[in-house]
Amino acid sequence: MASIKDVARAANVGVGTASRALSGNGYVAPETRKKIEDAARTLHYTPSELARNLLRNRSGIIAVVIPCLDHCFYAKFVQLIESKLYDHGYRTLICCTLNQNNAEQDYLDMFRKNLVDGIITATHSFLDEDYQNSCRAIVSFDRDFHDPSIPIVCSDHVKGGTMAAQRFLDNGCKKVLQIYGSGTTDGHTIVNTAHDTFQYVLESHNVEVLNYFTDWNRWDQEYYQEVIRKCIERYPDIDGAFTSDTFALHFLTEAQNRGFHIPEDIKIVSYDGTSLTQMVSPSITAVVQDIDALTTRLIQVLFQLISGKKVEPCYLIDVKWKSGQTA
Amino acid sequence: MASIKDVARAANVGVGTASRALSGNGYVAPETRKKIEDAARTLHYTPSELARNLLRNRSGIIAVVIPCLDHCFYAKFVQLIESKLYDHGYRTLICCTLNQNNAEQDYLDMFRKNLVDGIITATHSFLDEDYQNSCRAIVSFDRDFHDPSIPIVCSDHVKGGTMAAQRFLDNGCKKVLQIYGSGTTDGHTIVNTAHDTFQYVLESHNVEVLNYFTDWNRWDQEYYQEVIRKCIERYPDIDGAFTSDTFALHFLTEAQNRGFHIPEDIKIVSYDGTSLTQMVSPSITAVVQDIDALTTRLIQVLFQLISGKKVEPCYLIDVKWKSGQTA
Repeated sequence: MASIKDVARAANVGVGTASRALSGNGYVAPETRKKIEDAARTLHYTPSELARNLLRNRSGIIAVVIPCLDHCFYAKFVQLIESKLYDHGYRTLICCTLNQNNAEQDYLDMFRKNLVDGIITATHSFLDEDYQNSCRAIVSFDRDFHDPSIPIVCSDHVKGGTMAAQRFLDNGCKKVLQIYGSGTTDGHTIVNTAHDTFQYVLESHNVEVLNYFTDWNRWDQEYYQEVIRKCIERYPDIDGAFTSDTFALHFLTEAQNRGFHIPEDIKIVSYDGTSLTQMVSPSITAVVQDIDALTTRLIQVLFQLISGKKVEPCYLIDVKWKSGQTA
Repeated sequence: MASIKDVARAANVGVGTASRALSGNGYVAPETRKKIEDAARTLHYTPSELARNLLRNRSGIIAVVIPCLDHCFYAKFVQLIESKLYDHGYRTLICCTLNQNNAEQDYLDMFRKNLVDGIITATHSFLDEDYQNSCRAIVSFDRDFHDPSIPIVCSDHVKGGTMAAQRFLDNGCKKVLQIYGSGTTDGHTIVNTAHDTFQYVLESHNVEVLNYFTDWNRWDQEYYQEVIRKCIERYPDIDGAFTSDTFALHFLTEAQNRGFHIPEDIKIVSYDGTSLTQMVSPSITAVVQDIDALTTRLIQVLFQLISGKKVEPCYLIDVKWKSGQTA
């Protein structure tokens, strides 16, 4: 690779002149500039961002770790992060941990090698210790690493679970199914607080709550459909269902195909409230996670860590209610 | 940040010995190795990926330029690219060009500075010349840069448009609306070949085709809904609609809400065939772009360019038919 010195030598000028001509900072006589530009072109010279980053010990890159992208919540989540990081002069590297053995481990090794300046992780895996040693600036979305140096940003799931439960109470439901991830068993998956709260509130009012636990890290449509078919066959007499958006959409479709009337026979409330819930008829009633506020806070906390400032261990973001036609 | 020199000095060995011990390449006496590893740990030494990349003039990063991520097609597209690049030892940087003035221009400047080893672009913008000078390895998805050095990978849209048209003919439709992007006017947006073909085939059979052009680079739900409302109000007597998945979903919902029976009153065929089309009832009949084959080919062509091999100007990927309940 040609250096600025090579260009200067070829153009028969000093390095300072070549640098001024190529950076555009400072005066260089037009004829000299042309000579330098010709030399740079001939030698295929390009100023290297890599070299510059090495000097600054900064890559200008933030990694976002997510289970998958082909999912309405995470797609919007990453889109907003990318847009906001861009505003701060950073670029976004994505790391999907689904479908790849050891991908997350490999990415963590990479992070340790200084290739990224910070990490926003929304992982669903179990590599706690690896995260703790991987980067000086890590913020967690919705996962408790039980490590005070990794702050958490998450929705107010207690409020979210309570709002959802209240809707089923208001509707007079007596037997409600909730479908959610089995990640609950490790005590790290914070979103399950919503489901625990939901169950607690309903059971305190003598409403029966049935739990269907989904497999860890399955995000494909075939699996969604299979789960919903099993649920409706196993629990044909429920009068309410509470689950995430994609499952809610499949539930609505499958229930309608089997002749159930929604919301007359079964009320549905979904958790997340992405645009999916508004694309169907009837539109789905939802507790909305505020992805805009969540991503803004994640980035703010990350930059506080990068600049060595103190941060809180946890930041709660308010949830909202979106009225639909299913409950 | 501690350098390899600091580690060598602290362990009282030469830089070469320290390097051999820490890289694992070459023999170092066990006792010496332990001394060096202890020094590295005490000094928090990590070998810098940035430094290594500078030496190799390789970043190990591929940029993917897309209009937005919060869209079923692009979310899946990027997820598959990330997964496949990971298999090749590369990382994926995403660049969403929506919602940011000059973002694409800024990214192109970055690319010119060697920060990425290659670009897969699915952009909808008009920065042709900037792309041509930005990187030695660029592959275009579905966009014609009119530059033989930028190969194109796209679906066989002529076949796709023909398949869709045939379905409306088989259904005896007489007045069909198609909704698609106005990007057609620049002659670069290859997907519009499907719509041109569609119109040509139907008109050759005396079917009336109405075109509704959507605004450039609008991808938000509110806009989708507004377009669909306008279309249904403006053309209440159509008997068929052909558009992309998200518009098709909104069309189905809006039409049902207004009392139309689908498919009895209006047949719907969508283009893309992402999982969205299977989430609703009735499920949407679609021409499927094979995202798996498209991304595999894009990456294969990109690596051919990176390694200096010759490539074809254009690669066509077959489309498939997915039967649904709307046509």
